[in-house]
Amino acid sequence: MTDFKELAPTPSLHVDAAIVRRNIQRMADYASAHNMQLRPHTKTHKSRQIGRWQMDGGACGLTVAKVGEAEVMADVCNDLLMAYPTVDEYRCQRVARLAQRVTMRVALDSELAAENLDRAATAIGAQIGVLIDVDLGYGRTGLQTDDQAVRLGQFVDCCGGLRLDGILTYTGHISGPAEKQAVGFDRVHSRLEQLLAQWQRAGLCQDIVSGGSTPSALQCHLAACFTEIRPGTYVYNDMNTVRGGYCTLDDCAARVHATVISSTVAGQVVLDAGSKTLTSDLCGPAPDSGYGMIVEYPQARVFRLTEEHAQVDVSRCTFPPVLGQRVTIVPNHVCVCVNMQSNFWCHDGADATELLPVDARGLLV
Amino acid sequence: MTDFKELAPTPSLHVDAAIVRRNIQRMADYASAHNMQLRPHTKTHKSRQIGRWQMDGGACGLTVAKVGEAEVMADVCNDLLMAYPTVDEYRCQRVARLAQRVTMRVALDSELAAENLDRAATAIGAQIGVLIDVDLGYGRTGLQTDDQAVRLGQFVDCCGGLRLDGILTYTGHISGPAEKQAVGFDRVHSRLEQLLAQWQRAGLCQDIVSGGSTPSALQCHLAACFTEIRPGTYVYNDMNTVRGGYCTLDDCAARVHATVISSTVAGQVVLDAGSKTLTSDLCGPAPDSGYGMIVEYPQARVFRLTEEHAQVDVSRCTFPPVLGQRVTIVPNHVCVCVNMQSNFWCHDGADATELLPVDARGLLV
Repeated sequence: MTDFKELAPTPSLHVDAAIVRRNIQRMADYASAHNMQLRPHTKTHKSRQIGRWQMDGGACGLTVAKVGEAEVMADVCNDLLMAYPTVDEYRCQRVARLAQRVTMRVALDSELAAENLDRAATAIGAQIGVLIDVDLGYGRTGLQTDDQAVRLGQFVDCCGGLRLDGILTYTGHISGPAEKQAVGFDRVHSRLEQLLAQWQRAGLCQDIVSGGSTPSALQCHLAACFTEIRPGTYVYNDMNTVRGGYCTLDDCAARVHATVISSTVAGQVVLDAGSKTLTSDLCGPAPDSGYGMIVEYPQARVFRLTEEHAQVDVSRCTFPPVLGQRVTIVPNHVCVCVNMQSNFWCHDGADATELLPVDARGLLV
Repeated sequence: MTDFKELAPTPSLHVDAAIVRRNIQRMADYASAHNMQLRPHTKTHKSRQIGRWQMDGGACGLTVAKVGEAEVMADVCNDLLMAYPTVDEYRCQRVARLAQRVTMRVALDSELAAENLDRAATAIGAQIGVLIDVDLGYGRTGLQTDDQAVRLGQFVDCCGGLRLDGILTYTGHISGPAEKQAVGFDRVHSRLEQLLAQWQRAGLCQDIVSGGSTPSALQCHLAACFTEIRPGTYVYNDMNTVRGGYCTLDDCAARVHATVISSTVAGQVVLDAGSKTLTSDLCGPAPDSGYGMIVEYPQARVFRLTEEHAQVDVSRCTFPPVLGQRVTIVPNHVCVCVNMQSNFWCHDGADATELLPVDARGLLV
């Protein structure tokens, strides 16, 4: 990998296949140990290759956020969940067409979404699975009360083009140390127990109860109701997951290679990886830590990004990087960083390096 | 445009050609009135089509940040400036190859960059124009003293594969109201006058003295030394330039169309345009104003972005947008927003709408 690194132009994204496989295995082992299915969210990598590895590693299917991502992942997986409501007709029609090819599920939180999806499915004789999105604290999408959830479940149950498969929630609000997460999952558990009781009384299907996020992934068993989890970031990890305490730097599989392109200002070097490479996303658990971490120079701080420049404070480095030198950056938020790239270099052992496409990047809807 | 808007899927980027042409004309008129050449920075649009319009509108050439952008823009313009140092050999070789096809200039601030570029040019018999990058206050790249600049100018002058064409600076640190900018340009003028005097005594070429940024563009004549300016954002504009006072909302040519996909939380709607569409860039002049402005709902505030969701506080809207409704967002920073898209819809009058590629997006180096 070292030799190759010298050849690949910068800025560029590099993925270590061995770390990816280990991350995939670890999450699969956890899910399996707790009798949950694993349905990784592919928004993080948007790559057929990595999706295939997740399926080979024991995933029950894949999660996507967009129809375009679903269409790409349908090439490597025949059981897809779009954890995103399909409100507009265009999305609904594309999902329906895909449902003729693979098992397709959608999470939604409104009758309008259900109606439009049903119409699109019925029009071409497709059937689409539905999970009712319920909000258990994150406050973004999802129904707010059990009554609302049950009513929408009953509504979907009556739609000929739809098949009610269960419930979905997003536990992105649960983070931090295990003991703090335990309190959060305790609440989720109570809320879900109540909902599922009412759900059962209404005779609604609860084959799938889908939860999870990467920060909360390894505590999801505490909810005691999830049949499947949908972590995404775990496959690559980033400074958010490192500084959040969910993994170590050694678990970060995706790194940006950059070159020092200027060093005229005292105490500063400038790298060729700006906000069009790393994105302006701060590190959630440590917003003052700068825009990513330079692995070889932990004392350096990427204090400012412009579009193609990273300004790095190297005043605390005894031997700062010099002009022309290459460095390696672990991004703050790998999902948005990957989404910036058209390709990534995948390093699979000393002699196997491939330039792979970020297949599902920049697709419509 | 209205009918078409109903058809185009969301989230998507829409450009109003009439506004683009007006923005191009206005900047060309300003430059011409002050005897400066206009060399627009194409990082904002990354589109051959828009680059062609800028050339047709009187630009002397185009500016780029990356070699990939230069290779794309070489299809519509034969006089390119890469306002970015080419330190590594790979960049240098690609620039040299391009210099066999079009007039190619590079800004640089180190002997290493000059040596590597010279070697690449000499190897294939190309010649590359060089502007010495001097820092007059922005503090990112560029030489810090007149002596350093003159020494590097002399060094470049002795390189057979290079041709010293003058000086470049970036006035991104000058912003705000005209009277404040006047003070900034007064300093730039004194610094440049001193440098150019020393430059002349050393017998160095000063055919080009290149400056400018969009916020400072219309005051650049105050520097009284620039032969050309390189604004980028002006072609589309965004909330940065609106809230900075450099244009009005009517001058914003590029807007994101989004759909309300959830409205379950009181006082909030969720749009399908998250940080993978709008980016997390805050508005420089108004960091608390949210992630872009919803044109139809100026009282709404996009308070939080996740990857594919925008959470919008609509509690101050008398008639908030409803589920399924489409809205139009002017992004905070249009250059990074455009860089997220593979395509944009270009609306040129009532009946002429085209889906055009963001040609130079996501290219290596």
